[in-house]
Amino acid sequence: MRRKEFKIEQEEEVAQFLQGMSFGFLGTSDEQGQPRVTPLNFVYMEGCFYFHGSHAGGKMESIRQQARVCFTVADEYALIPSYFSDPHLACPATAYFKSVTAYGVAELVEASAEKAAVLSRFMNKLQPEGGFDPIDAEDPKYRSRLKGVAVVRIVPDELTAKFKFGQNLKEEERSGITRGLEERNGERDAETIEMMKKYCPHHS
Amino acid sequence: MRRKEFKIEQEEEVAQFLQGMSFGFLGTSDEQGQPRVTPLNFVYMEGCFYFHGSHAGGKMESIRQQARVCFTVADEYALIPSYFSDPHLACPATAYFKSVTAYGVAELVEASAEKAAVLSRFMNKLQPEGGFDPIDAEDPKYRSRLKGVAVVRIVPDELTAKFKFGQNLKEEERSGITRGLEERNGERDAETIEMMKKYCPHHS
Repeated sequence: MRRKEFKIEQEEEVAQFLQGMSFGFLGTSDEQGQPRVTPLNFVYMEGCFYFHGSHAGGKMESIRQQARVCFTVADEYALIPSYFSDPHLACPATAYFKSVTAYGVAELVEASAEKAAVLSRFMNKLQPEGGFDPIDAEDPKYRSRLKGVAVVRIVPDELTAKFKFGQNLKEEERSGITRGLEERNGERDAETIEMMKKYCPHHS
Repeated sequence: MRRKEFKIEQEEEVAQFLQGMSFGFLGTSDEQGQPRVTPLNFVYMEGCFYFHGSHAGGKMESIRQQARVCFTVADEYALIPSYFSDPHLACPATAYFKSVTAYGVAELVEASAEKAAVLSRFMNKLQPEGGFDPIDAEDPKYRSRLKGVAVVRIVPDELTAKFKFGQNLKEEERSGITRGLEERNGERDAETIEMMKKYCPHHS
């Protein structure tokens, strides 16, 4: 289920998934083509990814060298043991997960007011209970701090989502896995069964 | 706490962390320097990372173009709200996490017996309860399947670990955060306090 274009419902599902995930992985590449993967808290708003950090440091240096980046967010729902579908072969062992990958250009957010707006969204996402004075570019206690922080926007030109929940299975395998998950009843197994139903090509 | 060299105890901690994490993020880069980040199940053994996949497909193509890769594994323990240390500013909001990043060269594992050994380690890690016939390159039911799967080894020439648990805090801030975590008592907050103690520069 790799899609290059999203219908509205799918866009909403992607946005919802990204809203529920606190961190993702930034891929950058230096002049020698050496890749670098950095875990980062992020927000996704109006189709762009945002993160913040120090102006110094490796990831900003990478971005200055090469503005083309990748950003991937993934959540593993369940490891699916081979014996849910085969008593002998190890091969069917797999994992069910959601992942979203964006390819695009990273650019610095320069204006303090825009930085304040982005960082406010960060706080709303990661500290929704509040407990801080609103981030306002005009507020003297925030002004110099806003200058000191680097805020980066990734403008995706391609966004792919892979929600893997056994869509390719034959009915018999599918029911074996559903039964296995029901019996195992691990922390996220019920949720995984829901996703299997939701994304099952025969249920839609 | 970014280290380029590990003492034995730290190597063991890194190995233990990696053993407990089911997936990580492979960073590759194509001929144009476009980075790509792919979530993957992995094993870490004898100082190398291993993953498997289809011989076709994007990540193998990327590796053929550029064998220099990056592999990052990260686990977020806790979001630390700003008000644990400051009643007004949003700035102290942060996350405590462990991450390990390896830079190195990706190479294909060619020999069937070695592939079988790697995939056995995969199964031991991700399906420790067993429930499958041992993966043996001589076993006719595994022989052609082993040929069909691509197994990749990443040989790191640099490995960095960042275990961020407030090591830079002053005593007063540290105790504010510990108290906040105790009161919040979220799913992994007790574990986070343990890590704060374990990695506190004043406790060692």
